[in-house]
Amino acid sequence: MLLAAIREKGSPVCVGLDPNLSLMPEEFQDGHDVRGKLKNIEKFCRGVLETVAPIVPAVKPQMAYFEYFGAAGFDMYFQLSEYAQKLGLIVIGDAKRGDIGSTASAYAGIHLGRPDSPDALTVNGYFGEDGTKPFIDTASANGRGVFVLVRTSNPGGTAIQNFAAADGTMFYEHLARRVAIWGDESIGQSGYSCVGAVVGATCPAEAKILRQIMPKQIFLVPGYGAQGATAKDCAACFNQDGTGAIINASRCVLYAKPLNGNWKKGVEKAAKDFAQDIANIL
Amino acid sequence: MLLAAIREKGSPVCVGLDPNLSLMPEEFQDGHDVRGKLKNIEKFCRGVLETVAPIVPAVKPQMAYFEYFGAAGFDMYFQLSEYAQKLGLIVIGDAKRGDIGSTASAYAGIHLGRPDSPDALTVNGYFGEDGTKPFIDTASANGRGVFVLVRTSNPGGTAIQNFAAADGTMFYEHLARRVAIWGDESIGQSGYSCVGAVVGATCPAEAKILRQIMPKQIFLVPGYGAQGATAKDCAACFNQDGTGAIINASRCVLYAKPLNGNWKKGVEKAAKDFAQDIANIL
Repeated sequence: MLLAAIREKGSPVCVGLDPNLSLMPEEFQDGHDVRGKLKNIEKFCRGVLETVAPIVPAVKPQMAYFEYFGAAGFDMYFQLSEYAQKLGLIVIGDAKRGDIGSTASAYAGIHLGRPDSPDALTVNGYFGEDGTKPFIDTASANGRGVFVLVRTSNPGGTAIQNFAAADGTMFYEHLARRVAIWGDESIGQSGYSCVGAVVGATCPAEAKILRQIMPKQIFLVPGYGAQGATAKDCAACFNQDGTGAIINASRCVLYAKPLNGNWKKGVEKAAKDFAQDIANIL
Repeated sequence: MLLAAIREKGSPVCVGLDPNLSLMPEEFQDGHDVRGKLKNIEKFCRGVLETVAPIVPAVKPQMAYFEYFGAAGFDMYFQLSEYAQKLGLIVIGDAKRGDIGSTASAYAGIHLGRPDSPDALTVNGYFGEDGTKPFIDTASANGRGVFVLVRTSNPGGTAIQNFAAADGTMFYEHLARRVAIWGDESIGQSGYSCVGAVVGATCPAEAKILRQIMPKQIFLVPGYGAQGATAKDCAACFNQDGTGAIINASRCVLYAKPLNGNWKKGVEKAAKDFAQDIANIL
């Protein structure tokens, strides 16, 4: 489904929906209570979704920014996900959930098992197979996907994740091997598994190795733009045929400089530039 | 605060609030829609909290079981946390959140920064320092705590977390060393940091090593009871003076056999037996 959407739109890109009120245009700053703030967030997010829907194949709403506002924000995350789907967008829910057994099943139920659930979910794989399997099973049963965090894009990730075994294998490679195994039972017609991986664009040398370990995983790639990675840095995340990755940008699109005083025109230009920038490397 | 509560109640134990409808007594089975089910969950949880409040120092509501029901469930998690605090219980929110930068700050804001937030939160440390710091800062500023996942209690954790470096250091030890450093700036009058660690009771040999690496971390210890660990297995999680850990049990208390047909009497007996069982090893 994701690959078809990428083909249709012509570029493997995703816009992250990280609604941070303090970065939004002036007109969204008049909310003084939770209800007012959420109303502005909803208006902004709907505007972004409508603007980017003709340009990009996917969006990635970030749960934390909605959950921050409590139950009403939690609800809005799902409402906006549904709205994005109605606009023809693939929705990758970025909630980074993770736990074990029946607890993981409960998270999977709401994030991947309901009619209004997003099309995919980011999942923390630190718990191992009995933590990840409930998410994979629910995704698989509902034609959805998961992206397991393998190598994150933040600077602090290195000190934790680049931990080497005697033979030189890094911890993130060890985790990647497991992800490849976990995904092996659910490979679709496209040749890719419904089990993908999060691999930061900020570490291209590592991405190259991970691409070899996980040939059948779609990579969800954060780190472009505000976090410092360029389109060139993202190239290692793709297979040789130019498929197998989707590059995310959030801040540099959402909070782009307005064009002739129009913030939506600014978002539109930034989304087009981003999509083109990534299409150029393939 | 937690240590004072432990001293007052006489045993370092915590009851996990994992409301799984299918395991609850007959009288809670008549809910046919989300509202009806949540009403039963609320009634059951309030009954459990009132029953265990005189016996145990802390409870650990599991977010997944509430979040499963959407916004209304999300809300109930916070309402029950507040109710537990009113009953004099320390509330350890088990939501296992984790992300980076401003996203982590947003999670920390709702889970550790509001008046109705729990007293502590379980946090996934895979992102490293810039992922964990926003949680620690918010906890520290609000007199609250975090428990970073170091060694989980599930069988699948071993294949991921027991990954050895050339010098024999395991990945979970590597993470534990970071947790000790992260917690070093926020050590309270008790000698313990507001940064604790989750260490499973199912791996006592590893707990013994982790206790040495993290002398100033309070260990939140899952795995007792239904997951197979005994009180004796939990002993390695304590410092030599018998402080520094809190042992959690969920299913074996919540879904204890009713006494004379009374489920609350069953929970009461199970909580007392659990508290005594752990007190006996100290």
